[in-house]
Amino acid sequence: MKSKLAIAAVFAGLATAYVTGIRHADGAENIQRQIEAANVIFVETFATGDAVALTALYTDDAQVFPTGIDIVSGKKAIEAYWKAGMQAGLGKITLTTLEAEQHGDTAIEVGQAELFDTKGTRLDRAKYIVVWKRVDGVWKLHRDIFNSNLPS
Amino acid sequence: MKSKLAIAAVFAGLATAYVTGIRHADGAENIQRQIEAANVIFVETFATGDAVALTALYTDDAQVFPTGIDIVSGKKAIEAYWKAGMQAGLGKITLTTLEAEQHGDTAIEVGQAELFDTKGTRLDRAKYIVVWKRVDGVWKLHRDIFNSNLPS
Repeated sequence: MKSKLAIAAVFAGLATAYVTGIRHADGAENIQRQIEAANVIFVETFATGDAVALTALYTDDAQVFPTGIDIVSGKKAIEAYWKAGMQAGLGKITLTTLEAEQHGDTAIEVGQAELFDTKGTRLDRAKYIVVWKRVDGVWKLHRDIFNSNLPS
Repeated sequence: MKSKLAIAAVFAGLATAYVTGIRHADGAENIQRQIEAANVIFVETFATGDAVALTALYTDDAQVFPTGIDIVSGKKAIEAYWKAGMQAGLGKITLTTLEAEQHGDTAIEVGQAELFDTKGTRLDRAKYIVVWKRVDGVWKLHRDIFNSNLPS
């Protein structure tokens, strides 16, 4: 009886490990898909030039960390930042997620971006880390830091 | 009997909330202290000018994201990056943790840095996000992105 129980325990352990393994793999793929889906909305909103709509994709207490200025804190400041960028000629952004890691309602994304003017000329290549927070089921940008790959 | 049980349940709930609240507060303070302690080692190691020792504070598959170049991946590249910076005159760094958030063996730090030359002249003010990983009980820098606050 003892050995039967032991064998059953081992099989149960293997089954758990197997299922957990699949769950982990699914989870990793799943969060990347979720973040990529959120990025599609970011990219499409960016292309409309609507800084208010773009800022709505951030959390209420979000921060953006652009090169050359202090930390941009809160929605009003973030809206003003992106509005100024768009008025200065930013027309389009592309985002490529390199990795995405989920911890409950938090996700950490590492990615690369390209910035274009309204005529489609590439202005910059950049890399970024975004800390996402899931708020009421929606992934929102919470901490957004990036810098250029190009020599100044 | 029913109402006594109900009251007991409410008190148990309050006690749990109270203890959980303290635990959360302790946890938040604790991770900030842990990351600040790790940063003290980073700052002290940086000041010795030993790029090998500095790189040992990163995970094996760490990445650094400096402005003006592509992503710096892995210890060899990170060592070369910091060595070049030190040879170019970087002498000292200060780090101030603005927030630290723990998710198991992962921590996300937002902070501000100041860079000085070997004579103590400030070269730059910067902000950063570091994703830390706890490896064998030691917090190591895993993703390290920063940019200058100063206009170029």
